[in-house]
Amino acid sequence: MSRIVMKFGGTSVGSVDRIKNVSNIVQSVYDEGHEVVVVLSAMAGETDRLINLTKDISDDFNKEEYDVVISSGEQVSVGLLAAALHENGISAKSCLGWQIPIITSKDHKSARIEGIRSDLINKILDDKKVCVIPGFQGITSEGRVSTLGRGGSDTSAVAIAAAIKADFCDIYTDVDGVYTSDPNKIPDAKRLDKVSYEEMLEMASLGAKVLQTRSVETAMTNNVALRVLSSFEGADKENIGTIVEEEDKINDQRVVTGVTSSLNDCKITLIGVRDKPGIAAKIFSSLSENNINVDMIVQNISERSKTTDITFTIPKDDLSNAEKIMDLIKDDVPYESLLIDSNIAKISIIGVGMRSNAGVAAKMFSVLSDNDINIDVISTSEIKISILINKEQAEKATSMLHQYFINENE
Amino acid sequence: MSRIVMKFGGTSVGSVDRIKNVSNIVQSVYDEGHEVVVVLSAMAGETDRLINLTKDISDDFNKEEYDVVISSGEQVSVGLLAAALHENGISAKSCLGWQIPIITSKDHKSARIEGIRSDLINKILDDKKVCVIPGFQGITSEGRVSTLGRGGSDTSAVAIAAAIKADFCDIYTDVDGVYTSDPNKIPDAKRLDKVSYEEMLEMASLGAKVLQTRSVETAMTNNVALRVLSSFEGADKENIGTIVEEEDKINDQRVVTGVTSSLNDCKITLIGVRDKPGIAAKIFSSLSENNINVDMIVQNISERSKTTDITFTIPKDDLSNAEKIMDLIKDDVPYESLLIDSNIAKISIIGVGMRSNAGVAAKMFSVLSDNDINIDVISTSEIKISILINKEQAEKATSMLHQYFINENE
Repeated sequence: MSRIVMKFGGTSVGSVDRIKNVSNIVQSVYDEGHEVVVVLSAMAGETDRLINLTKDISDDFNKEEYDVVISSGEQVSVGLLAAALHENGISAKSCLGWQIPIITSKDHKSARIEGIRSDLINKILDDKKVCVIPGFQGITSEGRVSTLGRGGSDTSAVAIAAAIKADFCDIYTDVDGVYTSDPNKIPDAKRLDKVSYEEMLEMASLGAKVLQTRSVETAMTNNVALRVLSSFEGADKENIGTIVEEEDKINDQRVVTGVTSSLNDCKITLIGVRDKPGIAAKIFSSLSENNINVDMIVQNISERSKTTDITFTIPKDDLSNAEKIMDLIKDDVPYESLLIDSNIAKISIIGVGMRSNAGVAAKMFSVLSDNDINIDVISTSEIKISILINKEQAEKATSMLHQYFINENE
Repeated sequence: MSRIVMKFGGTSVGSVDRIKNVSNIVQSVYDEGHEVVVVLSAMAGETDRLINLTKDISDDFNKEEYDVVISSGEQVSVGLLAAALHENGISAKSCLGWQIPIITSKDHKSARIEGIRSDLINKILDDKKVCVIPGFQGITSEGRVSTLGRGGSDTSAVAIAAAIKADFCDIYTDVDGVYTSDPNKIPDAKRLDKVSYEEMLEMASLGAKVLQTRSVETAMTNNVALRVLSSFEGADKENIGTIVEEEDKINDQRVVTGVTSSLNDCKITLIGVRDKPGIAAKIFSSLSENNINVDMIVQNISERSKTTDITFTIPKDDLSNAEKIMDLIKDDVPYESLLIDSNIAKISIIGVGMRSNAGVAAKMFSVLSDNDINIDVISTSEIKISILINKEQAEKATSMLHQYFINENE
């Protein structure tokens, strides 16, 4: 017997029929004798409907009340699933964020989980009942309803799994696991049986949308074994999905685990920035204060001219905002001109095996040069190498790198 | 300065525009310096949408989880209004049933309010904030979400008014008060400035849909001054509505306060029932056990034959159910035959003045006979006389009685 947290997203509970399907999946796991906690998102479309209501009231909708409104979506789905389980003959009980309680910070709309009491959940499990919990919501120490921000249901599931010492946290999605690359673009992409937290983190932040980044961090910190499974395959026992766990539990000898491609970024270059201390700090703190997430940063010092060029990438959505900020700080950070390039792709290879394998970067660059792909910017971490190239060449680059590092190393 | 509870129903908060209108009404009262608590229903249509989801899951949806699902509707409207008030520059705070808490019985789907803590509401009012509370919902002593059953928001408002010792409980509806008869059918109907709790109770139970019966009972028990006002007239100071209060505060000399007509009942007659003790108890307890509300009961003993005929009325919706029950009890309650008449109208005149005015019934009957309207069944209480007639004559009877008792006594 294992203790299992099963998390289903908005698409998986998007209609009454889909909820009945989830009920059947939960039943098949429960019937194997496991202790089961289910964590749910709101029905697909419901959160957007509620957000639109708030926007119609005000562009600056009160954040505390926003959480009161938006959290109602998950409340509906847990009630519906708990009743569907009863209909299947399984005793189930919904527990809302405030009932457990799931204590969060006071940052309404983007709260962080600070603690989860396990008493009520344990009691429900001891009574042989399935406990059904809304993801994404909690309660502050002042007793106000809070939400974690979009995608927070994954994080809720992992934090609950940690709090009740679950053996597995199973994330059910519309794909059947984590792939070596996007299977919609790379037909050769393979499902990974296992992947380490670190690799998953890099892949999540690079655009593999299977898991939310913060949920992987939470799993790594608390050593929760995550499994990514498909909710569309029903109770298929062959559906083993992908396990995300500690690196040293993975015996695989592979060097590169995944190849990712993202077209969501754009590149900004400040030309002729005066080269003096504090300049970089000024640029990047003004961006972060405005919640703009900077990814790659490259600077080359040009000693002769006492000026330098600074290049960085940000999400395309933040471009107009970033331009305004660069304009505002021009008095403090004198620069000659500003270049913007939205025509880029970020291609990354990820793998914990890189640590013990020298020359991976060199191999990556030669694969690209053999295919006449010009590299614009390079950025590396311990287990990842990212490059920027022209976006016209993104598919070719991904395909060639996948061919070289994954297929030929099977 | 008064302490005022303002209650708005589903139509009044049925769209974002209507919610902004409510926000303006609340602001106008708040700006006069009053302490304001607002109680809201779910947006019109929302409760039905949620009920349909539960029906699609199961015909026998778990009652505890039903309350979890359905209570989300009011949660959305309070969050939206509180934020709309912020938008108007008024500090407001929503408080859900479990936050206050509003403690109810464990009868999920039709719980009764057992107690309301006033601490949190008082604190919010002391902070010069408007407190926005969802009607219809509460929490059981076991910490489960509960709902009061349809129309329960009026009762919530009155119970909250009693708990915080409000000076007024203002029920905003789509009409501007309580009328002497249905103004859609009787063009001469007049708005009443004042009406007693007892009269309002009779009128509510007889089909005047302005206030829910239980809310009037709660107001009477707790001596809460109710005002019925229109939410469609905005903050019009001329909109004085109708005050529902103690009889001895009303100086009016009128005998009849209202004339009502209902087509929602049907009549069942058991012919040739053996006349022995316990027969009536058997019939009516079997109906009440099945939650069928019996209204009028008439029995005439026929001494010669040792049998009697028993006539009673029930809501039309319960007819097929009642027929089954009458069939089941036939062994215990032998009767010759059963007659059903759905072609009836119940016409009532109501007024506390009847107590001190003899001959009101006689006058009622002669008005009807003067107009060739045949009376089928008669039932009286201290402040009400109800008759059953053929439903074809309902409008004529109502109109003639209104003419005689109301218009000619102005």
